[in-house]
Amino acid sequence: MLLNTLTIVGVGLIGGSIGLAAKKRSLARRVRGLGRNRDTLEQAKVLGAIDEIAFNPEEAARDADAVIVCTPVDLIAQHVLELAPFCPDGALITDAGSTKGRIVADVEPNLPPRVHFVGSHPLAGSEKRGPQYADAYLFHNRWVVVTPTPRTYPAALERTRAIWQALGARVKVMAPAEHDRALAVTSHLPHLVASALAGTLTPDLFDLAATGFRDTTRIAAGDPTLWTAIFKHNRISLLEALNHLERQLQAMRGALTVENWSHLERLLAGAKQVRDGLGS
Amino acid sequence: MLLNTLTIVGVGLIGGSIGLAAKKRSLARRVRGLGRNRDTLEQAKVLGAIDEIAFNPEEAARDADAVIVCTPVDLIAQHVLELAPFCPDGALITDAGSTKGRIVADVEPNLPPRVHFVGSHPLAGSEKRGPQYADAYLFHNRWVVVTPTPRTYPAALERTRAIWQALGARVKVMAPAEHDRALAVTSHLPHLVASALAGTLTPDLFDLAATGFRDTTRIAAGDPTLWTAIFKHNRISLLEALNHLERQLQAMRGALTVENWSHLERLLAGAKQVRDGLGS
Repeated sequence: MLLNTLTIVGVGLIGGSIGLAAKKRSLARRVRGLGRNRDTLEQAKVLGAIDEIAFNPEEAARDADAVIVCTPVDLIAQHVLELAPFCPDGALITDAGSTKGRIVADVEPNLPPRVHFVGSHPLAGSEKRGPQYADAYLFHNRWVVVTPTPRTYPAALERTRAIWQALGARVKVMAPAEHDRALAVTSHLPHLVASALAGTLTPDLFDLAATGFRDTTRIAAGDPTLWTAIFKHNRISLLEALNHLERQLQAMRGALTVENWSHLERLLAGAKQVRDGLGS
Repeated sequence: MLLNTLTIVGVGLIGGSIGLAAKKRSLARRVRGLGRNRDTLEQAKVLGAIDEIAFNPEEAARDADAVIVCTPVDLIAQHVLELAPFCPDGALITDAGSTKGRIVADVEPNLPPRVHFVGSHPLAGSEKRGPQYADAYLFHNRWVVVTPTPRTYPAALERTRAIWQALGARVKVMAPAEHDRALAVTSHLPHLVASALAGTLTPDLFDLAATGFRDTTRIAAGDPTLWTAIFKHNRISLLEALNHLERQLQAMRGALTVENWSHLERLLAGAKQVRDGLGS
């Protein structure tokens, strides 16, 4: 057992999956959950994702060797700073937020020096929400980006890495800003584009939207409030990624307009090569 | 048995699935295949998608009650017109092409009057190619758009409908141009956008492209030559659909730029409503 007590703040799809994996893979002797919604916590307990429910930050943090904050990105820094004063000396706090720069910048200068924070982002999840969708194998072989800064203790980084590896994941270390630039391209831009595409569909065309449309727009079913908060945190990098996409679309529009079919085919072939490289 | 002999021209994923479904659901006593590639035809025969191989248009068309042309959209009209002279009186020819206006316009004025042509487009398939991916249930409960014109005999339309229904599909009747405008939005634009998005990904970011990116770009793995031919046939409607998408993206970019987060959230909520309406 790596940990005696692991506390999860926000026991939804991600937090619940961390709890299930922590139990199944014997990461922690005891998993404790804190959250806004009592029913959700009770459900997570019934599902075996947590062993006990904490009723406030003090109870949640007491004796916790590690805390993982799995709340929406705009609440993570606040939740870290609420729990930190009640954590034992040397405790590690990390998170599961889709953005890192702003969260790390909000947490680091305000953290008691006897507690460690290292940002994390597990690249796993879905457009679903709630512990009923939690899955003990959600992190199996998935990448988790861990984002230390020059102020991070090497031992805290290694413990963060060890926790995610114990949950089945592979760990990649990046600076917070580098993470945000990369995820703007690989996650935030696709969400924006899927939403824009879904926004072009009128109800009379629903029957004619087959697998291709459904795949391409699936993530547009994600929660608008969560995604607005993500976009707010990563606005500049997202705008840069959007510029890059616009240049691609302009190249395609140009080829269509002047009927340069060989150029259009080369653009599609380049995209196919990238997609084939990714695998299914 | 609705048919004695059904001929399939182009026995790949779609043609092979038609053959398998025709055998399994007893649509035709005999299924005959014609194609460019002898190995593919042999493979289709081994898989049970066709009973016999034809070596030229004359052999393929002889005694055929119905012919379904499943070749790339830029070859369909030519293949229809090559087989038609050899078809028995009253034979029905249809197709499985992703565009309809150009194909129907190229076929109708050049068809011998004793043979009938009605355009079809089954909304089923995948980015895969070849009879090894054929599936007898590919059309089960899927929509097939059938596109008669003022010159179509009502009986020919009804036979086309009956064939697709016998293969397990549901039939929607639309004018060819109406089909093309609709599919520009539901299929051709998503392909263009998925390709543009895949085109923004550099190899250093492959590890960070998780489920969302993969879903959103899956169709970009489709064959560039086939899709260039589709875009060529449906250029004007595709450009119109692209304009519509650009307006959606501009609205999102505007909200991001001026940090109007409530507006951005409303746009995402509208897209989620559409996507939720589609189902999985």
